[in-house]
Amino acid sequence: MATGSGKFPQMHPVPGFRLGTACAGIKTPGRKDLVVMELSESASVAAVFTQNAFCAAPVTVAKQHLESATPRYLLINTGNANAGTGETGLADAQQSCEVLAELQSQLSTKALPTKVLPTKVLPFSTGVIGEPLPMDKLLAGIPEAVKALDENGWADAAEGILTTDTRPKGASLQFNLDGSKDLLTITGITKGSGMIKPNMATMLGFVATDAQIDPELLHRALHLVTNKSFNRITVDSDTSTNDAVVLAATGASGIVIDESSFEQFVAHLEKVFIELAQSIIRDGEGASKFVSVVVDSAVDSAEAVKVAYCIAESPLVKTALAASDANWGRILAAVGRAGVDNLDVSKVSISLNDVLIVEQGGRAACYSEQAGEQAMAAEDITIQVSLNRGTAAETVWTTDLTYEYVRINAEYRT
Amino acid sequence: MATGSGKFPQMHPVPGFRLGTACAGIKTPGRKDLVVMELSESASVAAVFTQNAFCAAPVTVAKQHLESATPRYLLINTGNANAGTGETGLADAQQSCEVLAELQSQLSTKALPTKVLPTKVLPFSTGVIGEPLPMDKLLAGIPEAVKALDENGWADAAEGILTTDTRPKGASLQFNLDGSKDLLTITGITKGSGMIKPNMATMLGFVATDAQIDPELLHRALHLVTNKSFNRITVDSDTSTNDAVVLAATGASGIVIDESSFEQFVAHLEKVFIELAQSIIRDGEGASKFVSVVVDSAVDSAEAVKVAYCIAESPLVKTALAASDANWGRILAAVGRAGVDNLDVSKVSISLNDVLIVEQGGRAACYSEQAGEQAMAAEDITIQVSLNRGTAAETVWTTDLTYEYVRINAEYRT
Repeated sequence: MATGSGKFPQMHPVPGFRLGTACAGIKTPGRKDLVVMELSESASVAAVFTQNAFCAAPVTVAKQHLESATPRYLLINTGNANAGTGETGLADAQQSCEVLAELQSQLSTKALPTKVLPTKVLPFSTGVIGEPLPMDKLLAGIPEAVKALDENGWADAAEGILTTDTRPKGASLQFNLDGSKDLLTITGITKGSGMIKPNMATMLGFVATDAQIDPELLHRALHLVTNKSFNRITVDSDTSTNDAVVLAATGASGIVIDESSFEQFVAHLEKVFIELAQSIIRDGEGASKFVSVVVDSAVDSAEAVKVAYCIAESPLVKTALAASDANWGRILAAVGRAGVDNLDVSKVSISLNDVLIVEQGGRAACYSEQAGEQAMAAEDITIQVSLNRGTAAETVWTTDLTYEYVRINAEYRT
Repeated sequence: MATGSGKFPQMHPVPGFRLGTACAGIKTPGRKDLVVMELSESASVAAVFTQNAFCAAPVTVAKQHLESATPRYLLINTGNANAGTGETGLADAQQSCEVLAELQSQLSTKALPTKVLPTKVLPFSTGVIGEPLPMDKLLAGIPEAVKALDENGWADAAEGILTTDTRPKGASLQFNLDGSKDLLTITGITKGSGMIKPNMATMLGFVATDAQIDPELLHRALHLVTNKSFNRITVDSDTSTNDAVVLAATGASGIVIDESSFEQFVAHLEKVFIELAQSIIRDGEGASKFVSVVVDSAVDSAEAVKVAYCIAESPLVKTALAASDANWGRILAAVGRAGVDNLDVSKVSISLNDVLIVEQGGRAACYSEQAGEQAMAAEDITIQVSLNRGTAAETVWTTDLTYEYVRINAEYRT
């Protein structure tokens, strides 16, 4: 189950960014499960990682490598998360970087004189937790992935990073800065369907642009847009051990993003990020609804987010959504337990897809069950909550909770 | 679905405490849905209520009444929560108290000269949220319930307060204080199955004792035992708008509980409360497992509770439990996202029913999938997490997450 058309978009290649995908047989023979991404030497890179204290081995290694060098390669496998694997897991992640670096160093002797250090490779893994990485298969797959490196490799890579996802997820746009005719490109892919409540990042997301932008500014941009996209979604309130988002700027366009054009750049980047984050929710495990929870007129952003997540994570609200039942009492109960200081419940109003259901803390005078049912019949539902005590507004996107969700997660390892 | 035998226990009557139950047809004709409880004039009463900001009308009225008088009557209906009902709801709750008080004042002219004030009645409602209370049926049922008042009315009352519960829930014990041969009785009933994450109280609980104890000490006892019972359970992380627990001490035994005997009294009271709280989890919506989450060697109690709830509320942990899948990676991920400051993950160990599955933050050397499967096959599962950073320990009880849970909650209003 999933919502929306799920059509994979046209992916504009990003000059200076190549992707290669292989079938390494890590979990399932014959499926794309290993991806190598190559960045031009001049690229800037920014990344954010899971806040889960039990972060996976590749997350630990990627963070260390990022501190000591600017990445040239990203190495991603699906089928195994290399999480909860202790010292062996760290050594495996490290070795996979070494093997890729060594292979590229051999190639580089012809064209480029520089040796590729292992610290210039960032490893990423996703899949089942707690099982050792099948290193023989993974290492054997690297040359095939490297051989496939191509600026048009986005669609294959989008497939090569999936786990329980039912479809690949991508977003791509081109735009020009005010007063310029030169096109800039932003293209990205993501994966994720369950264990989705990213905290600083989602399961995995890789976005590239050919803009030229210094690393500090790039990181500021990544932080801003992640907080409006991947950090505003939840399927099941479970933060993964492997979340990571990488943003690379190859600079190949020669167009410089500085303070004066930063805002324009971020606005377009945010579009791509929101589209990617929403595509995870549209493909959320067992999802039959795409739900936007909008909380407005809150005292501040944190309060709006807190209330929105309390609704978005309520199993009772989510099962009512699955049944297309306008059970507004459950939404109201979720608002009430969100821990808002001195909430005046008599000021709260709630709408479902523009049908006002609660006003002044009780059932709206104009509300009819029929109107509620009609609103709930839609696949895309917006729950709008007005606290009427401030000016802040935030949106969180989520799914409903269906039999299918339980089936997928009860059967995941069997 | 439910776990355990569910056998309703022998209920020792509490002298000075009578219960009467009626079929008022509030939601379903012919089922017990209205209960009156009568306390002796000398009784002390303590109560705790939901912390949900959207508390139901009867909760608001009960709190007001408690401030101005010592209760003589409790009036409980099921089938309708009288929540989200605004001014009408408050007026309805108030009127139901007035009608019961007036009826008892008329009766009292013969035996007792005192008029029963409406403030001496506490109203309680449970059931669907957001629909007006059917006052004609409720009021018409009161005389029948009053007529049935009896010290042996516990079993009928336990049925008369249920909603989606599949069975009545009670606990009862008798004991004597050290050095005394006179028996004291503690008997109570509770209800609750969904929207269960009590915050200061559960859905509804009514406990009586014939001990003589002043109101302040009684409230201290209630607070202590609630924090170890009803405030340590979760079915679905949703705090209800109607939660309330009442503890009445009739004093009919003539045995005084003071500071010297307080600890003994609380120890027995806690047994009754934990049995009642656990009976809610055993009858949790769709439950096929009874799960105790024990977190030990934490820095303090709050930290242990935080980690325990993070595990107990994780949909991924709960679906794995439903499938009897020893998916310890999900437990580990839940510990990791619980927000423990400076958690040294390499010190964490986890056991499932005495099978060590995680040590030093990774899979235990001695662990086998077969041992994990064997542990998970049991109906009662204990997940024990050792943080190894302090001396505090806490237990939270929860259910698994099954298809049946989704079915019940998707169909609740239809």
